[in-house]
Amino acid sequence: MRKERWERLLAEIQEAGLSGIALMPGPNLFYMTGLRMGLSERPTLCVITEDAKVTFLMPKLEARKGDAVSSHLAREGVEAQFDVVAFSDEEGPKEAFSKVFAGMGTRWGFEYRSMRLLEFSLITPAVRDLEWVDAGEIMKKLRMIKDESELESMRKATRLADLGADIARKLLRPGKQATDIVREIERQLKAEGAQAVGTSLATGVDTALPHAGTSTREIAEGDVAWLDLTVCVDGYWGDITRSYAIGDIGPEMKRVYRVVLEANETARTQAKPGMSGAEVDALAREVIESYGYGDYFVHRTGHGLGLEIHEDPYVVASNTSPLPVGSTFTIEPGVYIPGKGGIRIEDDVVMTENGLRSLTAYPRNLLDDDRKLVV
Amino acid sequence: MRKERWERLLAEIQEAGLSGIALMPGPNLFYMTGLRMGLSERPTLCVITEDAKVTFLMPKLEARKGDAVSSHLAREGVEAQFDVVAFSDEEGPKEAFSKVFAGMGTRWGFEYRSMRLLEFSLITPAVRDLEWVDAGEIMKKLRMIKDESELESMRKATRLADLGADIARKLLRPGKQATDIVREIERQLKAEGAQAVGTSLATGVDTALPHAGTSTREIAEGDVAWLDLTVCVDGYWGDITRSYAIGDIGPEMKRVYRVVLEANETARTQAKPGMSGAEVDALAREVIESYGYGDYFVHRTGHGLGLEIHEDPYVVASNTSPLPVGSTFTIEPGVYIPGKGGIRIEDDVVMTENGLRSLTAYPRNLLDDDRKLVV
Repeated sequence: MRKERWERLLAEIQEAGLSGIALMPGPNLFYMTGLRMGLSERPTLCVITEDAKVTFLMPKLEARKGDAVSSHLAREGVEAQFDVVAFSDEEGPKEAFSKVFAGMGTRWGFEYRSMRLLEFSLITPAVRDLEWVDAGEIMKKLRMIKDESELESMRKATRLADLGADIARKLLRPGKQATDIVREIERQLKAEGAQAVGTSLATGVDTALPHAGTSTREIAEGDVAWLDLTVCVDGYWGDITRSYAIGDIGPEMKRVYRVVLEANETARTQAKPGMSGAEVDALAREVIESYGYGDYFVHRTGHGLGLEIHEDPYVVASNTSPLPVGSTFTIEPGVYIPGKGGIRIEDDVVMTENGLRSLTAYPRNLLDDDRKLVV
Repeated sequence: MRKERWERLLAEIQEAGLSGIALMPGPNLFYMTGLRMGLSERPTLCVITEDAKVTFLMPKLEARKGDAVSSHLAREGVEAQFDVVAFSDEEGPKEAFSKVFAGMGTRWGFEYRSMRLLEFSLITPAVRDLEWVDAGEIMKKLRMIKDESELESMRKATRLADLGADIARKLLRPGKQATDIVREIERQLKAEGAQAVGTSLATGVDTALPHAGTSTREIAEGDVAWLDLTVCVDGYWGDITRSYAIGDIGPEMKRVYRVVLEANETARTQAKPGMSGAEVDALAREVIESYGYGDYFVHRTGHGLGLEIHEDPYVVASNTSPLPVGSTFTIEPGVYIPGKGGIRIEDDVVMTENGLRSLTAYPRNLLDDDRKLVV
């Protein structure tokens, strides 16, 4: 599996006419090597040239990780020449960068969204007439289409996302604090094997802010609430939002709920392979606009999901490329009425030859405490 | 408190002859504004000009945070003119960046360690003859010296770090898994109010890797172990490492323990105000070298600590600047013998007029299960 990824990457580097690409610690490096490293003030790069030389440029105290991953990739059959160039804290990174980049080609792929001035400023003095393009564009081609092992990880993650949505439904009661509910969700999901959990549980008027954090106010009868939950398993993310009614939320918020649900269902059931991100965004947006709430749907319909919570492909008006078969993304229309409240319903879907299949499965209808249908 | 920080920042910008500085989401922005935001693929900047114009350049769905923090800072008496320039997902950030930077000065401070090619490439087309310096150098001057409210937060964080070290001592027993112990530490510390907890609990031969993660092997009689624990309270970090003996660890590791303890104590008690990071590093390093273990102390003696786990000042040979009174950093010598094991003892200290005062207080001697002294 890794062998195939490396063959595709080297072909892409050659096709783009690049001298090579440099990967930072992060999801692209993990995808290619399985190496998990955080960003620190000590720069680390994996430099991959068009003729299959792979150099881990890293601080000395991480150098064994470079050695270990080189052996591992060689054992998996990746045909490349591996090397580790390490620098101590005393030496600093300048000479190591110069050693790796000097005398190499001038046309590089760098990760536009993660390379910092820290790394860039160490490379520029070593490469005369440096030109660079976004290596993210190459990595996105590889990563956008998930293989079966990736989908299996995402199914595990979305099963836990469904579980979290259910825990929230059971615990959202007047007098409780969202912060306590969130702690309990995180505890249960970690006990079930989640590597990482991110939660925003907005209640009452806070729900009108699409990116509200967890509310600290006391939950009251008549509140609307939404839980936006991200769960990581095997490095892959699930991402769900469900909205809830604590007692009677009144006619306007019920109407908003129905509109958002219709937008979610329309996009999920009407999207077909070949449609662009813009077209699928329009499917959801037109429903909301038709009910007069267009001005209150202030974000895109969805984002790609996988090793990152936000990745390609995006379900947004500006994305006129087709959403490819095998890609995974969210469908998450929302309506937010300032001073009143907001509703969002988010699912994770995979594009198949027959349209979208949802990975998240928790019920989307608004249920009361006894699971009776409210909307 | 914030008012004073802004006055110092504007004075520094003027003294450096800059048109302004741009802060990314992260600790510098939090220090100046209290605004907590994560990095995303949507660029966000706080642009501060030398004539006290402050512009939050951000995606539309975050714009209310910009408004809220502007009002908040104005209420705290910060004398600046606040503005929010927001872009929707449909528009994208290009025009907003151009609007903010076009017609401004050409000499900017950017955060070398966090600004990405994403933001940099949006600024460069808007500023002809752009020159930039590291805004981190300015922010580091402000942030390095902690005020009383910051020290109080760090005391809370280090109290929890001490607690974590004690939980580990109680749970480290033959037959157990480090992963389970770490989960219990995280659970208890979160229940005690930790915002975030990071743990590495290495056991047996894994302890020879200074950056080992948590071991998955079963703990055995005769193992050495170390817990490296970071705890965040109110945005500020505590960072402790303690090493442990599970039964009899043999004469060599006991000897190594004594050497590392002496290095830790020597640096903590001999460091004086006016000494440089290099001089304090040498205090610990010379002890270890004198016992012949110099080649096995493969990292610096310490790093600054505060809003970040690694920040200025660094206790390293290359830092020839004095460690200022009011600065906070770690003292963490370690010896790592490949194939055998490693010991590290880490404390958090504040530089005072009278030398170092330790914020971490957990016992540093090697204790057996009944808290009897082993080393």
